[in-house]
Amino acid sequence: MCELLGMTATVPTDITTNLKALARRGSGDSPHRDGWGVAYYHAASVQVFRDPVGIAESTLARALQDSPIQSQTLIAHIRHANVGDISLPNTHPFTRELWGQYWTFAHNGQLKDLTTQPGFYKPEGQTDSESVFCDLLNQVRNYFCRQTPHEELIAYIASACDRYRQFGPLNCLISNSEWLFAYCSTKLTCITQRLRSHHQSEESRATDNMVGSAPGDALATLVATEPLTEEQGWTPLTAGQWRLWKHGALLAEGHSGA
Amino acid sequence: MCELLGMTATVPTDITTNLKALARRGSGDSPHRDGWGVAYYHAASVQVFRDPVGIAESTLARALQDSPIQSQTLIAHIRHANVGDISLPNTHPFTRELWGQYWTFAHNGQLKDLTTQPGFYKPEGQTDSESVFCDLLNQVRNYFCRQTPHEELIAYIASACDRYRQFGPLNCLISNSEWLFAYCSTKLTCITQRLRSHHQSEESRATDNMVGSAPGDALATLVATEPLTEEQGWTPLTAGQWRLWKHGALLAEGHSGA
Repeated sequence: MCELLGMTATVPTDITTNLKALARRGSGDSPHRDGWGVAYYHAASVQVFRDPVGIAESTLARALQDSPIQSQTLIAHIRHANVGDISLPNTHPFTRELWGQYWTFAHNGQLKDLTTQPGFYKPEGQTDSESVFCDLLNQVRNYFCRQTPHEELIAYIASACDRYRQFGPLNCLISNSEWLFAYCSTKLTCITQRLRSHHQSEESRATDNMVGSAPGDALATLVATEPLTEEQGWTPLTAGQWRLWKHGALLAEGHSGA
Repeated sequence: MCELLGMTATVPTDITTNLKALARRGSGDSPHRDGWGVAYYHAASVQVFRDPVGIAESTLARALQDSPIQSQTLIAHIRHANVGDISLPNTHPFTRELWGQYWTFAHNGQLKDLTTQPGFYKPEGQTDSESVFCDLLNQVRNYFCRQTPHEELIAYIASACDRYRQFGPLNCLISNSEWLFAYCSTKLTCITQRLRSHHQSEESRATDNMVGSAPGDALATLVATEPLTEEQGWTPLTAGQWRLWKHGALLAEGHSGA
């Protein structure tokens, strides 16, 4: 299995604290040492870094943690290889261009015996995760267009996830730069934090969670397979539950009820 | 205009020397300070790093220059923005998945009034370079398949480049992991070096160029808009000339004669 991290924020927000928290989860005796990756958006464009080594051993990860990187939307992943060898093509997040936008995808879980139709997007590697991402994009491309309202698009994506999870756990994060979508089949938890100035310490930020934050405040929501911090306020999603955010604001949520 | 660098080598070869040489070309009074990027292949998979700042000012570039990265095929670019603002989507090299392989493209030149047909691949940014890359891939996808022999594919790509350069300079590098293709319309020069052990110094490698290298030797060919080193042996390509290498070996070459 793997660990996921997503972030969606009202304003460009420092991502290094989150990467460091994820690096702690991929250190020591952690089984999640078979690769790591992060995709973060600057407005409509995405920067993707992946490395098929443990995040704690990665020169690239250290360089990023030392860089002052800010973003409003982030998807990160640390991998424990189940399907596919330890290699760059099998390292999440996966990205594809659709309608001139870069879509990104990361997955926790394992889908067995899922067969997909051939389509435009083809996996580069051997993972079930990249296959399901390509299959989803092939469908989205077939049935919708760039102008499709996100309500319609997301309803379709959520129902596709409902179908996929019949083949095994599918906890996943998807973004197209405009929004962050999270789908929970077995484990995913989230927390919304009020953002203070960037000068405050990690410790004080960690205790400043969503409860009581006034509307209009700058917010950041974290989504992860397991709580990334010890603070109170992490709220688990239930099986079949999904949420959609845009720049920190919850746009929609739903539940398959399956 | 911009500067290009390509490398193709018999064996995985240290790329940091080349990145440092490129960084020197993007420093000081250089106009090429509007972004830089590198795509390098590990077998069939590609790692791409881009940063819309000068390579000499880039934290990411410094981290890469300090990393022991080896590759057999590399495309790098430093940008002087002509078309499109200074931003990540406008930063070369561009990449797209085609037939489960990642194709990469970098361009020096400026194509004016080129109109392209809508197709599957759409540009994310505003550059003429990304437009021409998407247009080329749309055609390749329409007319060929993964099993097409490279002779047929490259003949088509070369003739497409002949057409594109009617709209302005098109010096470009393309790779799909299996080969490196270089097309010259106004300036591109290359040199083949015999590779010694990785322990030898940069200085001694720089004087060990292609002349007299025995068959079977491990070779690396560099292609660039301008000679990257002061050594003898850089050979300019002529207008309309193209070359195709696979892992250091010249597979084919041709000339449009236009």
